[in-house]
Amino acid sequence: MSELLGAIEAGGTKFVCAAARRTGEILAQTRIATGAPAETVAAVLEFFEGVTAEHGAVAAFGVASFGPLDLRAGSPTFGRILGTPKQGWAGTDLVAPFERRFGAPVAIDTDVNAAALAETLHGAARGCATAVYVTVGTGIGGGAVVDGRTLRGAPHPEMGHIRVARHERDTAFPGVCPFHGDCLEGLASGPAIVARYGAPLDALPADHEAIAVIGHYLGQLAANVLLIVAPERVVLGGGVMASEPLLRETRAAAARLLDGYAGHGATAASLERTIVAPGLSERSGIVGALALAERALEGARR
Amino acid sequence: MSELLGAIEAGGTKFVCAAARRTGEILAQTRIATGAPAETVAAVLEFFEGVTAEHGAVAAFGVASFGPLDLRAGSPTFGRILGTPKQGWAGTDLVAPFERRFGAPVAIDTDVNAAALAETLHGAARGCATAVYVTVGTGIGGGAVVDGRTLRGAPHPEMGHIRVARHERDTAFPGVCPFHGDCLEGLASGPAIVARYGAPLDALPADHEAIAVIGHYLGQLAANVLLIVAPERVVLGGGVMASEPLLRETRAAAARLLDGYAGHGATAASLERTIVAPGLSERSGIVGALALAERALEGARR
Repeated sequence: MSELLGAIEAGGTKFVCAAARRTGEILAQTRIATGAPAETVAAVLEFFEGVTAEHGAVAAFGVASFGPLDLRAGSPTFGRILGTPKQGWAGTDLVAPFERRFGAPVAIDTDVNAAALAETLHGAARGCATAVYVTVGTGIGGGAVVDGRTLRGAPHPEMGHIRVARHERDTAFPGVCPFHGDCLEGLASGPAIVARYGAPLDALPADHEAIAVIGHYLGQLAANVLLIVAPERVVLGGGVMASEPLLRETRAAAARLLDGYAGHGATAASLERTIVAPGLSERSGIVGALALAERALEGARR
Repeated sequence: MSELLGAIEAGGTKFVCAAARRTGEILAQTRIATGAPAETVAAVLEFFEGVTAEHGAVAAFGVASFGPLDLRAGSPTFGRILGTPKQGWAGTDLVAPFERRFGAPVAIDTDVNAAALAETLHGAARGCATAVYVTVGTGIGGGAVVDGRTLRGAPHPEMGHIRVARHERDTAFPGVCPFHGDCLEGLASGPAIVARYGAPLDALPADHEAIAVIGHYLGQLAANVLLIVAPERVVLGGGVMASEPLLRETRAAAARLLDGYAGHGATAASLERTIVAPGLSERSGIVGALALAERALEGARR
């Protein structure tokens, strides 16, 4: 029988856990509300103990987590959440508890790197060696796959916090990012939209200027990512991006920034294939965590 | 005796060619003024025929070229220069002539990707798995090494053309980029400095506001690159960056954009180790081309 993989998508509001065969067959799945770190991790361990009792040993785990994370190989705090505004979670180890309890290899990455990996394997960037995944929701975060591997440096991308040029009809709003004020996340995240316009995008009239303003900012991210990383696809997910007019406006803004440029020749038409909605919708995190578990298993055998 | 490698740094004003042993010993070197494509390539071939006659067969070639380049494996125009404003050069093949004449493998990459590779192997980013190299001169270009390999997607980074937020004392200048007007290259390249202030940076008074304005733009590039690619180092080279005050101001601007941010904790002090001058100065291109030749040789043996 095909080996058993454990997948954990660690989020600020919930932990999604799944156990699946390498063939992809899901055997068990659960959602655990994110509470204090010790209790939450204990509940995840308990879920996988039940899985083990029923289906046998888990051969490897994959963890796709909110960040920032220490992903530096050999670091004494590898696998831990770094400084985060989320109360009590800084320093939480998301690797050692699973290694210790189950004696299985554990791969960890950011939720958005895992989502980028999932989209290249099974989603809207399938077949692409290099792709970027961005989520636009309560926050803005991005991950990337380069030559088939997630992008991990010092320590991993945090592309939600790039600086953007202001839209001419949005010069006064100070932004909501607690770190940077009017960085991209401060200007274009869900809370920034509510703070500025009094309602989320899908509750505003179809001709509201919010689409032009927010698309202008997200188009800058898409253009910058295309110019800096040169991915074959930029996948834009998250609750805010569920708006089809916003996706169109983001493409149009990116095309205006890139248009006529020789190296990319990006036009609104070509960007329809390059800047795309996710193929896995909200499943990209857990699918990515499963892919990480598979890689942990392969890595352990090398 | 150690094998012979051929290196070609193809630039808009000159082609630098070198022949070296794998041990690093340089046997011959020349500079050829960049003329029409056919004549220039013929002169390069002639140089390496002389090398072959004197020292024996060249085992592999590395080409580090100005772009944009077609670097897509399997593309029918692989190894050619794509649309470029440089008269007559679009479509020029920088791979096949060397393969045909010398029957040796040829690796090609952008000049800035090659420089990034050289800096990680022998320069200011030595030991870094992931690093970005940016040159600021007549134009602005960037390359990257991720996990030891140059970043090549669709088709390769063009980070000089990112959009930046205007400095408050530089709102009227339209920028000089023929494609985008006031993109980074349009605002912060050597020609942009001369167009705005009437002189290059090193001819302006030490307290001139140009340092603050240009540093503000380059700091945005450095911060965006740190947030999007998460490299261990950002190496800033090129004629404009030779100004030590500009490098300091670029770091300070990046620190202002990143400061207090949990995932990076970047401060002006920590950025002194992260945002750095090149270790190889203007030799990074030819050293990178030699490294490409070495990789071509290794690739051919796999």
